[in-house]
Amino acid sequence: MRALIFDGKKLQFKKGYPEPVLKDDEVLIRVCKAGICNTDVEIKKGYMGYTGVLGHEFMGVVEESLNKEIVGKRVVSEINCPCGICDYCLSGLSNHCTNRSVIGIFKKDGAFADYITVPEKNLHLLPDEISDEDAVFVELIAACFNVSERVHIKPGDRVVILGDGKLGTLVARVIRLLCCDLTLVGLDLLKLERASSLGIKSKLVKDFNEKASIIIECTGTPEGLMTAKNSVKPTGKIIQKSTFASSVNMNISSYVVDEIELIGSRCGPFSPAIRALQSKLVKVDDLVDSVYPFDDAIKGFERAESKDSMKVILDMT
Amino acid sequence: MRALIFDGKKLQFKKGYPEPVLKDDEVLIRVCKAGICNTDVEIKKGYMGYTGVLGHEFMGVVEESLNKEIVGKRVVSEINCPCGICDYCLSGLSNHCTNRSVIGIFKKDGAFADYITVPEKNLHLLPDEISDEDAVFVELIAACFNVSERVHIKPGDRVVILGDGKLGTLVARVIRLLCCDLTLVGLDLLKLERASSLGIKSKLVKDFNEKASIIIECTGTPEGLMTAKNSVKPTGKIIQKSTFASSVNMNISSYVVDEIELIGSRCGPFSPAIRALQSKLVKVDDLVDSVYPFDDAIKGFERAESKDSMKVILDMT
Repeated sequence: MRALIFDGKKLQFKKGYPEPVLKDDEVLIRVCKAGICNTDVEIKKGYMGYTGVLGHEFMGVVEESLNKEIVGKRVVSEINCPCGICDYCLSGLSNHCTNRSVIGIFKKDGAFADYITVPEKNLHLLPDEISDEDAVFVELIAACFNVSERVHIKPGDRVVILGDGKLGTLVARVIRLLCCDLTLVGLDLLKLERASSLGIKSKLVKDFNEKASIIIECTGTPEGLMTAKNSVKPTGKIIQKSTFASSVNMNISSYVVDEIELIGSRCGPFSPAIRALQSKLVKVDDLVDSVYPFDDAIKGFERAESKDSMKVILDMT
Repeated sequence: MRALIFDGKKLQFKKGYPEPVLKDDEVLIRVCKAGICNTDVEIKKGYMGYTGVLGHEFMGVVEESLNKEIVGKRVVSEINCPCGICDYCLSGLSNHCTNRSVIGIFKKDGAFADYITVPEKNLHLLPDEISDEDAVFVELIAACFNVSERVHIKPGDRVVILGDGKLGTLVARVIRLLCCDLTLVGLDLLKLERASSLGIKSKLVKDFNEKASIIIECTGTPEGLMTAKNSVKPTGKIIQKSTFASSVNMNISSYVVDEIELIGSRCGPFSPAIRALQSKLVKVDDLVDSVYPFDDAIKGFERAESKDSMKVILDMT
């Protein structure tokens, strides 16, 4: 099969890559569409030290499964593959299972390929109302909903999102549903105008000098965390969504003195993301930057690496 | 001026009722539209022991104010009038000020009249996108948002709302924005279908026999709380929104044994409600039952008392 792999040094598009072998609890999925995430770009820079098939945002059709009822169905898949028996798994924290693999990120081949195997319990069936391309966003929208899983944002709260890229834009579309006092801060006038058209207040970072009790960091850069720290009120919360390969020099004392909470947030629940797309409370069709046939995956990845790009989708069909 | 008052025994529609006298911190508002709330119906049954001009859901135009910039503006008003200097006020709990009056509910004449006076700091200007009739719902929508102020409802949570009347229907429209797993339980097929058309799952109470961790009680009846208790999972939360004049016989031991939280929730923040109407994330135009000219206020009130009615609006213009 075809596959886009990272060998630790560079990306390679391979034909004749071996098809994945099904384990008992797994299903075989024919990948139809997959999205390139900033995490993929960071992996290419060394994040997670991962090598193998990249890709964790995808939708496909079940080709083989012991559960015959789902064969032929359109699905998305959660990306964490937990052991199911450790203390974390048994206490409802399976996303933090210490024995886990993560699709396309850690110890498990990803979705930039013609086929992928995933545990059946990771699957969510797609309602007809969600298109193939929109479905690629489910994993990312789920990660956005994780902000509201981790932190109680109240309708009366003032919230600032830093970063107008793919992640910041989608976090803003999810958080605006809370009807809180929300501002998106970014660098790109076009992206900020797109937010304004949805009633989200927006500001260029050079014009932003307010304070807020809740800051959501989505810039994908260490500098974003500095801006977050400078913008958060004493006793406030910084929710760190971006991951990046480089480390950050932090003045930890100022977190103590101002009693700031720094709250990491990663993957989130798929069901709310599916409900949000199905009900059209969250729309994503205008966030597709470009769709590349899978044979042009390397070109697509280059496009995803450019700072002004939104979601680049690879089409395996 | 005209006014609809409750004298402790019955409703009276008066002409020549004295106009309210402005205090220093107050503004005079010409009432344009006002909504009849179930609380008004309960007051007529004895709730709060209130006598005077009824009505707390309203919009109007500022006629007199020391702040000349707001004269002529369309406004809504928060209903709690706090002292501003007690411990509650100084700790951010002014809605619980022990010296407070509450418009049309406690120690202060309400909005079922041609004119009303309210503290200037209670006012919120109405954006042009919100119609006069929609604005009448701001106070009620704010009360719905108070659920999310009081309780952290996560996107992955299962939530059941009991009651498909005005309150339950609007709470459902606000809570659905959280994209949680939501079911509205009620008695009226038409009202439940209206919810379903927005993607909210709905069920007749006779067919409802599930359990959930979060139950929001909006039936306006003591029986609703019984159903809530029977439906809540151990360690779950019941959010009590309805107020009613009669008392309830409760098996408190079962709250201890099952470790249930019973959480009262009253008024809420106006700004999220205004944002929700302005952005059309919450729509209310289909919830208007009927609009009565103010001279027919007694007839309007009778309509509001009938169980199948939705929002009855009085038109003072």
